[in-house]
Amino acid sequence: LNLELITLLTDFGTADYFVGAMKGAILTVNPHARIIDITHEIAPQDIQAGAFTLLGVYQAFPPQTIHVAVVDPGVGSERRPLAVAANNHLFIGPDNGLFSYIYDSAATCRVFHLTNEKYFRQTVSGSFHGRDVFAPVAAAISLGVKPDSVGSLVTDYRRLDSLAPNSREAGLIEATIIHVDRFGNCITNLTREDLNELMISQGAFLMVGEHEIRSFRRYFAEADRGSDPVFAIWGSAGFLEISAFRSSAAQLLGVTRGAKVLVTGFN
Amino acid sequence: LNLELITLLTDFGTADYFVGAMKGAILTVNPHARIIDITHEIAPQDIQAGAFTLLGVYQAFPPQTIHVAVVDPGVGSERRPLAVAANNHLFIGPDNGLFSYIYDSAATCRVFHLTNEKYFRQTVSGSFHGRDVFAPVAAAISLGVKPDSVGSLVTDYRRLDSLAPNSREAGLIEATIIHVDRFGNCITNLTREDLNELMISQGAFLMVGEHEIRSFRRYFAEADRGSDPVFAIWGSAGFLEISAFRSSAAQLLGVTRGAKVLVTGFN
Amino acid sequence: LNLELITLLTDFGTADYFVGAMKGAILTVNPHARIIDITHEIAPQDIQAGAFTLLGVYQAFPPQTIHVAVVDPGVGSERRPLAVAANNHLFIGPDNGLFSYIYDSAATCRVFHLTNEKYFRQTVSGSFHGRDVFAPVAAAISLGVKPDSVGSLVTDYRRLDSLAPNSREAGLIEATIIHVDRFGNCITNLTREDLNELMISQGAFLMVGEHEIRSFRRYFAEADRGSDPVFAIWGSAGFLEISAFRSSAAQLLGVTRGAKVLVTGFN
Repeated sequence: LNLELITLLTDFGTADYFVGAMKGAILTVNPHARIIDITHEIAPQDIQAGAFTLLGVYQAFPPQTIHVAVVDPGVGSERRPLAVAANNHLFIGPDNGLFSYIYDSAATCRVFHLTNEKYFRQTVSGSFHGRDVFAPVAAAISLGVKPDSVGSLVTDYRRLDSLAPNSREAGLIEATIIHVDRFGNCITNLTREDLNELMISQGAFLMVGEHEIRSFRRYFAEADRGSDPVFAIWGSAGFLEISAFRSSAAQLLGVTRGAKVLVTGFN
Repeated sequence: LNLELITLLTDFGTADYFVGAMKGAILTVNPHARIIDITHEIAPQDIQAGAFTLLGVYQAFPPQTIHVAVVDPGVGSERRPLAVAANNHLFIGPDNGLFSYIYDSAATCRVFHLTNEKYFRQTVSGSFHGRDVFAPVAAAISLGVKPDSVGSLVTDYRRLDSLAPNSREAGLIEATIIHVDRFGNCITNLTREDLNELMISQGAFLMVGEHEIRSFRRYFAEADRGSDPVFAIWGSAGFLEISAFRSSAAQLLGVTRGAKVLVTGFN
Repeated sequence: LNLELITLLTDFGTADYFVGAMKGAILTVNPHARIIDITHEIAPQDIQAGAFTLLGVYQAFPPQTIHVAVVDPGVGSERRPLAVAANNHLFIGPDNGLFSYIYDSAATCRVFHLTNEKYFRQTVSGSFHGRDVFAPVAAAISLGVKPDSVGSLVTDYRRLDSLAPNSREAGLIEATIIHVDRFGNCITNLTREDLNELMISQGAFLMVGEHEIRSFRRYFAEADRGSDPVFAIWGSAGFLEISAFRSSAAQLLGVTRGAKVLVTGFN
């Protein structure tokens, strides 16, 4: 089963030729590869945002999909190019923490330092490893080349801090807004393991600054809405989100990424 | 003839993982589907803009194309997911008026309320029916599943007001600017049936505020231009557009979507 | 060898239906064509930017790729639609200079004025030749139609000024910033032929306004950085770029496209 399916996630934007050049480099090696854009609008050099987006999306793809991710402030000699086999998907990109949440979510993973220049572009530029290293290696792997033919196993790969919230004390969780989406939904780092149904039934609520959020909903457009337009809902990436009906929760709360969310009111 | 061709039109933007997740959900069901982006830049929750863009583009695609459209302020329990068979194309998305202009342009159409959860994602989130309902249903249909296996016929689907202009009185048509494009062209709701060649030859002209537009052109760059940079031209979606040579007609006229256009000067 | 690979480069943006309509028009003629977006974010009607981006990207694609480029202020009767066979690629678009740097880089090229309306859309609009002329012709060619069946050879096609810098006098080159990318890198029109290793070893340096740039690097993230964050590096399109580590060189230097770069200090 080789799908020849390659996704792209970068901070390159779509105005320059960078994304097109990566696609061309893939198709030069494997003309039958099918390339899917995840996004190229990660803020320039924002590794944490790239890591979160990759985590939110990769599981929607079929097993064996190859995900090329390039958010790479240190392009060049300082960091290693990697291929990561985890959760039955393959990830290719720089060793700068971009795959941290993949590592965290995988029971086991194999991480390869890509060293076999035979699979790189003939001339590797100093500034565009997306085109010259990551794209051709992804295309080679889509043709059946094994990751261990392209590199050697490493274990000292770089990791960002875990997304898991702090339990500061009994009855209090200190969580964080880890992403604000286009609609102003505030994605927290709370999973169903951090905040379970029992805690919610006991009266758990959220505090964002002075704002108390006590409404937990199943749907955005639920009929029974009460007076506060802001509510909490389990989001599509598996995290609790703070949302507002037809409005931006981020604006209503005056928050951006990194803002603290306290959970309390449970035993 | 099954093309496995699926287009996407949303208000999701391209910065988040939403579009990527829809593509993954399609490819998980049908790895051979070919996915084409129409746009993801519909203004958030602007159903009318989504409906217009869908109308302008779908006929450029081959018959049997499946169009998934998601502009969905009421995601969740309040509105029904639909599949619409019309004009030899298939449309999938929420029952909130997004397919109004398809209904209006079709001699007949069959509208199905999607109820067969067998074709949905195993767990349907409360906030992301694009990934969990519309994408997998589209993929199933691209594999040959019939719409009537996924839902049941309904006739009380939601419709926006028709695009047709008002004929207020003899010799006067009250039209509207229904879209302003990237170049500042103002697309009106006037078709060749509303404003025919005879009326133009009789001296019909447009009034936008105080501005009279008397020049009707075949090409943007026509040689014979006169002194007014603003002119009318039959646009690529079949509507009369108000344009300006190498300039934004919207800026020159100081108008936005919804502005009135009066047609008079004919008998 | 026919790859049925068609790339798109336009100034259409991605908010309107224009790009989707071009894709539909291609797929209507050749349902098996594989369409790759280069960019649709060329600034409206900026032919020079479109020409540069096309030059930077096309060589990353396999031979026989068909590149459709539409940046077309004069859509309509005044300029000719062209197909250009050069460097083993095919280019389709308007005769307004958009292919200038392809002509300059090719030892030989054949340029065809597209006149055979049999390969156009049945009704050609006055304002959307991307959909009605260029897309269907590209699709026909992807099916094996020869360019000389669609048009006739011309030699008086339109060219922009060459990108080559001026050598004002011995020991001085007057170069130009021809593109500023998303990261603020300033791409000059200097190639390795203009500024060779010998000149650099002799002490060649760049002047941008009052700013002297004496650091030439191989990698963005090179260890040995010195005090000036701004440096020069051979970029991925083959031109010398002025860059800054994790920062925008364009902002640090206060320059935009068109700014002059003097090279001196060599013999």
